Amino acid sequence: MPGPLSPTELQEILGFTIDLARKAGALILEGSYAIQRAPGPGSVGEKKNAVDLVTEYDVKVEELVRNEIARAYPHFHFIGEESYSSGTRPPLTDSPTFCVDPIDGTTNFVHGFPYACISLGLIDQRVPVLGVIYNPFLEHLYTGVRGAGSFLHTHTDTTSTSTSTSTIGVPQRLPLAPASGRPLPALAGALIAVEWGSDRAQDPIRRKADSFSRLSGAPPHGVMAHSLRSVGSAALNFALVAQGALDMYWEIGCWSWDVCAGIVIAQEAGGFVTGSKDVPHDGVVTEAILTGRRYLVIRGVAGTSEESSLDVQKRIAREFYDTVEDIPLDE
Amino acid sequence: MPGPLSPTELQEILGFTIDLARKAGALILEGSYAIQRAPGPGSVGEKKNAVDLVTEYDVKVEELVRNEIARAYPHFHFIGEESYSSGTRPPLTDSPTFCVDPIDGTTNFVHGFPYACISLGLIDQRVPVLGVIYNPFLEHLYTGVRGAGSFLHTHTDTTSTSTSTSTIGVPQRLPLAPASGRPLPALAGALIAVEWGSDRAQDPIRRKADSFSRLSGAPPHGVMAHSLRSVGSAALNFALVAQGALDMYWEIGCWSWDVCAGIVIAQEAGGFVTGSKDVPHDGVVTEAILTGRRYLVIRGVAGTSEESSLDVQKRIAREFYDTVEDIPLDE
Repeated sequence: MPGPLSPTELQEILGFTIDLARKAGALILEGSYAIQRAPGPGSVGEKKNAVDLVTEYDVKVEELVRNEIARAYPHFHFIGEESYSSGTRPPLTDSPTFCVDPIDGTTNFVHGFPYACISLGLIDQRVPVLGVIYNPFLEHLYTGVRGAGSFLHTHTDTTSTSTSTSTIGVPQRLPLAPASGRPLPALAGALIAVEWGSDRAQDPIRRKADSFSRLSGAPPHGVMAHSLRSVGSAALNFALVAQGALDMYWEIGCWSWDVCAGIVIAQEAGGFVTGSKDVPHDGVVTEAILTGRRYLVIRGVAGTSEESSLDVQKRIAREFYDTVEDIPLDE
Repeated sequence: MPGPLSPTELQEILGFTIDLARKAGALILEGSYAIQRAPGPGSVGEKKNAVDLVTEYDVKVEELVRNEIARAYPHFHFIGEESYSSGTRPPLTDSPTFCVDPIDGTTNFVHGFPYACISLGLIDQRVPVLGVIYNPFLEHLYTGVRGAGSFLHTHTDTTSTSTSTSTIGVPQRLPLAPASGRPLPALAGALIAVEWGSDRAQDPIRRKADSFSRLSGAPPHGVMAHSLRSVGSAALNFALVAQGALDMYWEIGCWSWDVCAGIVIAQEAGGFVTGSKDVPHDGVVTEAILTGRRYLVIRGVAGTSEESSLDVQKRIAREFYDTVEDIPLDE
């Protein structure tokens, strides 16, 4: 049994994964464009309708990704929505395993709302070790490698105050704010990403709405978060937390392939990742958390003389779970 | 009394307004960057803290805008938050009047969430006739002139399927999808922008949460919208509806300067703008709607052989107001 991937091997895989993300991104953009110009589902004629095109591009992107990975890394395993829905659910092993969502933010992809992406994660020794997330609509490419930091590659340097100098592809280390992290005293004042999700039955929707009300409401009925945001992509929410643009993100019901890449990118930017209310909130992403379908991520924060960064994050995680309701999974 | 501004005059004002938006945008980016690196509100020392910097940049951007407008168009009137909060609330006249929000999406501006902008609207003969919205974080500039269409200027051509060709500043006509608009059969399947807003008292938050639950929930308790999005900027929500990335946007409690530019940009892209449940939903933006602090905007939609585009939009506006609760204003 070979040991863990070396830093050199991870950097080589990173180069391959970035290239693959850009190819997949071009296909995602092409698909979104075609869908928005397609006739509606009820229409007749020669042109493919929007629903057919969504399926077609989902399959196309997944095939591209699987084929390129199989060619470059034939011994790596693969986890994605398709392998799960086909009923073959291979247990996680110590071997390198790509954990991929070909199109994350499918609703956005269909509508042309600019938050859809490809999310390419790599697990090794049962731990997420590498992540690449590419949003072709905004040309934002996020990367993270365990022990080597995480970065945002854009067409321009968004940390510069000048909008005139275009510095194509220069990677900026995450978080964009100071590396030590800005302060985050409490949930009050936090900018929090939440999502309405795909389970629209009355009970989970009521629990979500009640939780969101307590996050946004003023005391004594709420904790007065600064506000709530919903962009509709789990992977990009993780990336925005890593960047420092969001203070935290809570999700129930998405899958390991939606978050695997984001976990590495967030952790390498000082972020704290945990699972449901009942797991230990110690910042260690166990296999149970990775596959648990309940995620909470908090950005890197500055510690104080009384409280370390990790202690602040752990305290905010507890405060968060004391505020929201649990939501049963739909499967 | 001079008559309405001519198309030639409007095009000249558009050029001035675009230049002004870019200058203000650079200042917004500089401010957001400084705030994220500033010490917290409780800190002591020589450096300005974040709260002081928010006020400082808000004033700086407003002064830049007022001074440049006063120099170029000394006889034009000006409406903005400052004129209202100072107690002098000049009535709207037939004269050209700039209606401006120097920084729309202040919470995002503070956190570095990339949806803050300057919103520059122009009212003439009591009707919005010109709008420029610039988001310096994403370098998205939206423009609209009554009778002359609306456009998105980006660094790249987002309608192209290639991500490699950078075509800086090429304006793309809105909506980005076919000019006739995609179909929008009903609220079911719509991508809807909503916001939690600034009024966090228990009653309005409960009404909002209940309304959002009915929009997102499955029948019989809800209408099963495709999903809900919240990016936290009224002006940019209007722009995203104009673009076709959102199907509609509902807002309670924001002000005319938040939406004036967006109204023109949305209308010129085939969008439908109306006010509260009780006004006639006929697509005519009266002074009462402009200043009424309740807004609903629906993107341009394709008509059918049975139903014109406008009839579809009017039907969806009625369906929407039958679904949500009214929310009292906090002033």
